[in-house]
Amino acid sequence: MAAGEHGSIRIGVIGGGQLARMMVPPAIHLGLRISVLAETEGSSADRAADAVGDYRDPETVYAFADTVDVVTFDHEHVPREILRELESRGVAVHPRPDALQYAQDKILMRQKLAELGVPVPAWAAVANEEVLQAFIDGHGGRAVAKTARGGYDGKGVRVISQADEVRDWFTALAEDGHGGHLLVEELVDFTRELSQLVARRPSGEIRSWPVVETVQEGGVCAEVIAPAPVADPATLEEAARIGRIVAEGVGVTGVLAVEMFEASDGRVLVNELAMRPHNSGHFSIEGSVTSQFEQHLRAVADLPLGDTSMTAPVAVMVNVLGGPAEGPMPVRYATVLAEHPRAKVHSYDKQPRPGRKVGHVTVTGQDLAAVRAEARAAAAAFR
Amino acid sequence: MAAGEHGSIRIGVIGGGQLARMMVPPAIHLGLRISVLAETEGSSADRAADAVGDYRDPETVYAFADTVDVVTFDHEHVPREILRELESRGVAVHPRPDALQYAQDKILMRQKLAELGVPVPAWAAVANEEVLQAFIDGHGGRAVAKTARGGYDGKGVRVISQADEVRDWFTALAEDGHGGHLLVEELVDFTRELSQLVARRPSGEIRSWPVVETVQEGGVCAEVIAPAPVADPATLEEAARIGRIVAEGVGVTGVLAVEMFEASDGRVLVNELAMRPHNSGHFSIEGSVTSQFEQHLRAVADLPLGDTSMTAPVAVMVNVLGGPAEGPMPVRYATVLAEHPRAKVHSYDKQPRPGRKVGHVTVTGQDLAAVRAEARAAAAAFR
Repeated sequence: MAAGEHGSIRIGVIGGGQLARMMVPPAIHLGLRISVLAETEGSSADRAADAVGDYRDPETVYAFADTVDVVTFDHEHVPREILRELESRGVAVHPRPDALQYAQDKILMRQKLAELGVPVPAWAAVANEEVLQAFIDGHGGRAVAKTARGGYDGKGVRVISQADEVRDWFTALAEDGHGGHLLVEELVDFTRELSQLVARRPSGEIRSWPVVETVQEGGVCAEVIAPAPVADPATLEEAARIGRIVAEGVGVTGVLAVEMFEASDGRVLVNELAMRPHNSGHFSIEGSVTSQFEQHLRAVADLPLGDTSMTAPVAVMVNVLGGPAEGPMPVRYATVLAEHPRAKVHSYDKQPRPGRKVGHVTVTGQDLAAVRAEARAAAAAFR
Repeated sequence: MAAGEHGSIRIGVIGGGQLARMMVPPAIHLGLRISVLAETEGSSADRAADAVGDYRDPETVYAFADTVDVVTFDHEHVPREILRELESRGVAVHPRPDALQYAQDKILMRQKLAELGVPVPAWAAVANEEVLQAFIDGHGGRAVAKTARGGYDGKGVRVISQADEVRDWFTALAEDGHGGHLLVEELVDFTRELSQLVARRPSGEIRSWPVVETVQEGGVCAEVIAPAPVADPATLEEAARIGRIVAEGVGVTGVLAVEMFEASDGRVLVNELAMRPHNSGHFSIEGSVTSQFEQHLRAVADLPLGDTSMTAPVAVMVNVLGGPAEGPMPVRYATVLAEHPRAKVHSYDKQPRPGRKVGHVTVTGQDLAAVRAEARAAAAAFR
């Protein structure tokens, strides 16, 4: 790989959110040069934002790519045409567009997972309300409808019993000129949600973290317990197996998060994929020998991957969400630091809005109940 | 304390070396805004270098200080007059110039430690070769001569038996117009060197890390073992006691490193002070719940201090020094990462020169011998 001044590899991150922000510390420690193309001035990744511009504008992205050795991402929204053109110009792009498309389009993802033989909920790509209603009726009268593109944190996902509850989505699909389908899936009766994080280098090396349990509230990740408290070791092995199959089958480079349901009937079913560091891996900053952010950088730079063992028996991460009646994190900040000297507080330097992730807190330790209580208390103290 | 956009506290660091560099990651995690005034373009702290200029130029420093809420340091070399003027203008400066003077001038430091009743080697401030020779002759025929100002990493320190071995220093003192004295100290017969790190807030809160053992080679720190393997618990208690007395007696704000000798006769004697994060505390990035860099930021911002417990039973840090026949760290970089997946590699992105600290490696774990062997092997693999 080419290298910048002093021989350091230059990594360019498209997108200036908290994921880009949290790539900066390990880049500094590893001696990698990190640059961010942010959407706006004053982004969460402002400290590394050498460029500000629209990632949907080809020339903006090409000019940014010219300043780095490898391009990677804070989000999955960069248009595929732009990424393919970057590759045709010889730019190293990780994850590669051929892999990233499965994180960009949930219908493509379902097709690919089916092809790989990975267990998924029953699903269909539906083009109109009649077909959708037939699926709902055939799966117990309720189902989960999803837009194929653009959803995150519960956006673009609805639990419905009548097809007309997503009429607006069909209308939007018709209006955007591409036509297209919605994804519909069975409503899985699950006991809990798991997430398997995996990193893979272009040269093929793979490392997995312990499977974690994620707790969602209102479609948004609220809490992550690492490792997932063991119910059935076979379940955890199955999750790890799925993670590797997906990473290799899709050809992911960088970090992959495979979100899964542990169903009441014992099945482990893949719910979503993300090809970047993921909220379910934030615990790894303190909880793992190698954090997901460090590992992502190592992977996209095709450097050897680090050890993914836990640094403590348990780590619990709790998100801090903004709310309407609250000021920025610093208002309660000193109180939280004073009351929770063992809590690791992460502020994304974002203006709080209701439900917006503005930070998180991680606690590591020996005893799950104590660690969880402290992490929850520290996060709650911001509210 | 005043605050910037989104309510974040803005911290300005004077000096762009690796200490400023390593303050950037915790600033990002804590949501503090960090800016660096670097000496040159392309400094080790380049990622946060919002200003480049000479820290000896008052207007450069005043202009930089106008952009932040609190000023702190990568080194102790900012002239005291400039710092006093900053304070008179209402700028928060930590450590305060009244404390920092003791790290800037070793004779003042010895006087202050004597006043605090802290055990130090026998010493004298000497203005000419005759007085120096008398001290040497009175202390076994050998002694350690030091320049009062400007020394670090073994520079400005000589073990001598004849006063004329530092004639050049007396000449330089005479030529600089200030006149002045050299410091001379007894040559302590020590079994090992210890370092006590302490952090103190302006409001008085103090936290100490476990005392560490430092191993020097050629006057430069080569290796740090945390915590110091216990010989005599009384020794470790004495080191901790001394750390607190110095921090409080001198009024340090931020991190203080007290380097000490464990003498063959059982005494613990203070050798040097540093009022900033210190090489002997780099282990804390992975080895402590709160690293010295995070704690320094919390302290200078007068935020509550974090827990200083070890994250593992033992942590060993080994420095990586540049040498004449070597390329930059990346030349052997991938090999080290591949062979030592548990080692945490820190590159300062500095052009290597013989003896220059260009990075370090830390390993944490259960067993001192194994951890030490791995840290040494990883660091050695860069050579």
